[in-house]
Amino acid sequence: MTAITGETRMTDAAGAPRTHDHPHEHAAVPVAPASSRLVPVPMTDVRIVDGFWAQRQAVNASATFAHALHWMERLGWIGNFDLAAAGDPPPRAGREFADSEIYKLMEGLAWEVARTGDAWAEETFRALTARVVAAQSPDGYLSTRFGGPGQAARYSDLEWGHELYCAGHLIQAAVARLRTAGEDDLTRAARRVADHIVAEFGPDGRDAVCGHPEIEVALAELSRATGDDRYRAQAALFVERRGAGRLRDAEIGSEYFQDDVPVRDATVLRGHAVRALYLSAGAYDVAIDGGDDALRAAVEGQWDATVARRTYLTGGMGSRHEGESFGDDFELPSDRAYSETCAGIASVMLSWRLLLQSGDARHADLMERTLYNVVATGPDEAGTAFFYVNPLARTVPGTPTSADEPSARAASSQRAPWFEVSCCPTNIARTVASLGAYVATVDDGGLQLHQYASSEIATRLPDGSAVRLAVRTGYPVDGAVEIEVLEAPVRAWDLTVRIPGWGAGATIESNGVRRAVEPGYVVAASGLAAGAIVRLELPIAPRITLPDPRIDAVRHTAAVEAGPLVYCLESVDAGTEELARLRLDPTVPPRRGEGDTVEVLVADEAIPGAPWPYGPDGSASPAGREPLMLVPYHRWAERGPSTMRVWLPLPEQPAGH
Amino acid sequence: MTAITGETRMTDAAGAPRTHDHPHEHAAVPVAPASSRLVPVPMTDVRIVDGFWAQRQAVNASATFAHALHWMERLGWIGNFDLAAAGDPPPRAGREFADSEIYKLMEGLAWEVARTGDAWAEETFRALTARVVAAQSPDGYLSTRFGGPGQAARYSDLEWGHELYCAGHLIQAAVARLRTAGEDDLTRAARRVADHIVAEFGPDGRDAVCGHPEIEVALAELSRATGDDRYRAQAALFVERRGAGRLRDAEIGSEYFQDDVPVRDATVLRGHAVRALYLSAGAYDVAIDGGDDALRAAVEGQWDATVARRTYLTGGMGSRHEGESFGDDFELPSDRAYSETCAGIASVMLSWRLLLQSGDARHADLMERTLYNVVATGPDEAGTAFFYVNPLARTVPGTPTSADEPSARAASSQRAPWFEVSCCPTNIARTVASLGAYVATVDDGGLQLHQYASSEIATRLPDGSAVRLAVRTGYPVDGAVEIEVLEAPVRAWDLTVRIPGWGAGATIESNGVRRAVEPGYVVAASGLAAGAIVRLELPIAPRITLPDPRIDAVRHTAAVEAGPLVYCLESVDAGTEELARLRLDPTVPPRRGEGDTVEVLVADEAIPGAPWPYGPDGSASPAGREPLMLVPYHRWAERGPSTMRVWLPLPEQPAGH
Repeated sequence: MTAITGETRMTDAAGAPRTHDHPHEHAAVPVAPASSRLVPVPMTDVRIVDGFWAQRQAVNASATFAHALHWMERLGWIGNFDLAAAGDPPPRAGREFADSEIYKLMEGLAWEVARTGDAWAEETFRALTARVVAAQSPDGYLSTRFGGPGQAARYSDLEWGHELYCAGHLIQAAVARLRTAGEDDLTRAARRVADHIVAEFGPDGRDAVCGHPEIEVALAELSRATGDDRYRAQAALFVERRGAGRLRDAEIGSEYFQDDVPVRDATVLRGHAVRALYLSAGAYDVAIDGGDDALRAAVEGQWDATVARRTYLTGGMGSRHEGESFGDDFELPSDRAYSETCAGIASVMLSWRLLLQSGDARHADLMERTLYNVVATGPDEAGTAFFYVNPLARTVPGTPTSADEPSARAASSQRAPWFEVSCCPTNIARTVASLGAYVATVDDGGLQLHQYASSEIATRLPDGSAVRLAVRTGYPVDGAVEIEVLEAPVRAWDLTVRIPGWGAGATIESNGVRRAVEPGYVVAASGLAAGAIVRLELPIAPRITLPDPRIDAVRHTAAVEAGPLVYCLESVDAGTEELARLRLDPTVPPRRGEGDTVEVLVADEAIPGAPWPYGPDGSASPAGREPLMLVPYHRWAERGPSTMRVWLPLPEQPAGH
Repeated sequence: MTAITGETRMTDAAGAPRTHDHPHEHAAVPVAPASSRLVPVPMTDVRIVDGFWAQRQAVNASATFAHALHWMERLGWIGNFDLAAAGDPPPRAGREFADSEIYKLMEGLAWEVARTGDAWAEETFRALTARVVAAQSPDGYLSTRFGGPGQAARYSDLEWGHELYCAGHLIQAAVARLRTAGEDDLTRAARRVADHIVAEFGPDGRDAVCGHPEIEVALAELSRATGDDRYRAQAALFVERRGAGRLRDAEIGSEYFQDDVPVRDATVLRGHAVRALYLSAGAYDVAIDGGDDALRAAVEGQWDATVARRTYLTGGMGSRHEGESFGDDFELPSDRAYSETCAGIASVMLSWRLLLQSGDARHADLMERTLYNVVATGPDEAGTAFFYVNPLARTVPGTPTSADEPSARAASSQRAPWFEVSCCPTNIARTVASLGAYVATVDDGGLQLHQYASSEIATRLPDGSAVRLAVRTGYPVDGAVEIEVLEAPVRAWDLTVRIPGWGAGATIESNGVRRAVEPGYVVAASGLAAGAIVRLELPIAPRITLPDPRIDAVRHTAAVEAGPLVYCLESVDAGTEELARLRLDPTVPPRRGEGDTVEVLVADEAIPGAPWPYGPDGSASPAGREPLMLVPYHRWAERGPSTMRVWLPLPEQPAGH
């Protein structure tokens, strides 16, 4: 395997790569396809020990879990299960999807137990299990919102009720538990839920789908985790049913639910972004396990089109507040970007699935971009306040959020401790806890390193031979990555690394030889023995990035990136809140500043106030240039309310010159 | 009075202008302030005889009224009144505000009867009156949606129920009728409604406001039309109550209802655009009639700020689909512009009120801009299909609307025959029918001509002396306006004309003398006698307009205007749907094409497809230049689905040059 310029996909000397079959097994992975080109290395085989993500995993463990638990107890969302168990009539607390937040927290706790063996996490998981399971009906149905005394009937509001969505998250928590701890009360309850759904919505049951996809991906993984193919078949049935207008809502339109076009016929993601991405993940799972090449190709094509035309520089997806949805092609406004944190997580879920099949670095590149610039942007440093939306500009500073009241989901430019619709905090919790699962894969030929973090990897190749590596790096602020082989197979094997799409100029040093490599997957070295060290140098010098000219919202602007990090200018560093008057000088390359900051030269253009903002005269020529500091986008708004821009205007030429 | 460069406001030689007091009277005007600087000339004194608006009034009369009536009968919205009269329980047809559409249609019919004496219009008005009045409760309450058998209680949903909003439109229909035909069953019913509201929501009644402002402006005008000051006091009370968070909705936020800040403390319009503008009109009315200078100044300041920072080139208002609302300052996206037709109409309502007090040409300029580019854009040529939203760009052609089913309000790039929420068609109908009311005013010094249309004006100055004019023009495509005096006061009087803000270079010829004049109000001639002719030449050559650099959405683009018309490029004329690849050459002045079209030179830039739309390379240098035709924005989408742009990208310089 060698990298070929312009090709990001792994190739095998022998031609087509072998696909690995994975019979039902219990590795600690979030995604376990029946077969794949790359075999995921379980999170339990990867210990992130230092740096960017280790820090976030520590905060997640020490603060975010307890924070989410506190809010959900306080607001009565967990208490809803006690009320349902007691058969109490409404009022019930929270929105129709509140149950799912408890389940996502439980999924996160399951991963956390596997990651660290933390006793509090285990205890909390068990306590929540007891309360959840007590609310289950004898026939397996489980919801605190429907079907109880004084409540609407089961499945009486499939458009908005989120019943199957909630069940899906319960099942995902159970899958995480099955793969990390084995069967317990929760996993048994989840199987009863799944059996109930199969009975209720099977080929001879209700001809219906849930307004919010999620059950598809959950049932597909439950099938993988249990070996019970009925769940995969049910997931496939839900996927096939969608797209024929079964969901009705006068105002919102069927595109919102992806109910406008069947998944296998669609060419691009559209409608509600989280819905679209969860659905795609589920559709891809059933395509892979069912050998449905047409469906698989459809999802892959949708990923390509969506990434090429409907994705933000940050990796964020969802251009519209209205319907929390994708927009049209190249509709990517900065200030009104929705880019929901959950959509970023869902995008990572989908890209990982594609990567396992494709070995195409573009899938891992987008994961990295999204992890650093959306997933890491969501929580604050303390892990107790969260962005729901992740715009690429703020033109007004916004107002501080309340520490005591849940915020509206997209109301402020500040992170909020909790939301009325609080899907993002628990989604962050489960994703950060399981991050180790996305670092590496293996195949017959060796091990592939997809994400760079100081970590210890101890795993086995498909033939059972052990590999142990120590990865040491200050990435993403430092581009040097040192990989030490601690234990190696006796047979030939390749250590493959990913050179990100921006990484032209990267070098690899191995066996005393340093060579330049191109973006894509590259065999760093072959047949390394224990004690060998490979040094990778990624070019993380700040660079200027320009947008496709079809993106109206950022015409004649430039962004600054360094390594996988997108940078931004904040008013606290600019000396003015009116950032649109500052023009980036693109002739002077940006350079590293203190710590993780970057310095650029900016000219300040005085803009005269006018009673009408349109006229024959264009911009003034900006005068003077001063250096300004940019900070990584993921940590914007950490210093109080501010205005912010990722895309900085370029100097304007007078019209006609 | 002479125009002063840089000053758009009329000034009097003697200093402060006299304010005219208007005791309760019945002139055929939509707005009759208790006192004003300029006295509105009734629509019955102005006959638009030919050209742009005459054509639209004819279509409105012959097609739009009957079209709206047909749809509202077919959908059962009028039948709702019959059901309510019969005491029948639900189901009732249509949305909660359906009653208001019948009232707006009736207001339009009232104006139409006054304009032309049309017998069908009178008959239809009376027939509708009978059905509406039959549904009124003995205590004056009138709604088909609340308070009846099986319906929710009166005023049980002030946030969303639209009860007072509907009552407001009933009252406005009655005011139109009072001022054009005198008392009848409808006006008596409307007074009973108003009396009921005063009793129910007065100082000792419910301490509440309606989610959708409208009752304020309606009660203020009813007070003017009846001389009953209780209605003004109630309107003032509603205005004062708003802004203290009386309206509760977890998701939408109080700004949507303008319930975040009291009107007198607000500095800019915000939230739902139609709500904000109707509220401002009502607040201004009570400020004027009540002598509340602080409230008056607040509304004037809000107009200034909104026009300077939150208004589209077309005059359109409302930047967000979400909440149909104003955005932040300079948040003016083209593709996602909401610019609801009704918001354009509401803006005309507000600006006219300010103009009557200010004599400031900026208020009339915005009215003209909005009339030609929003109000005229709404309906198609046939007057039977309508835009709900008026974006300044479409990047995908959209889909044809159904002729048989009501459309979602903002679903397509095509005009639709009717909507689920169908506020715009009837709003167009009442506005077009009453357009004559916005053409001219008088004061002690003479007559002021605000809008140019071939018309006959026969009116009286405040002292009773008669003035008759014939205006002949091909405006807005022809800049020549000939004003012939048919009858003149024997005493000294001024004929004042408005030179639009874009009109630098205009000339006026009078008494054989031709002189250059500046934008603003200009005395065209003084003491003209019958037979005298004044010739005004407005510079309507196409011009290039550039945006304020703070508007991210249109950075590095230019628009073309000619006279009051905004132009656009449509794909049917461009030969490609991907209009973003075309670059306007700003060095070649646009020139007149066939009819009302304009020709520009455009370079075509091939844009290579890329899997990721961000990178180190900027735009290619566009090659070749070809002439392309632009059409007036108001008639875009008349030739089937197309993509469209008002703001055309300018050529890009390679970064760093």
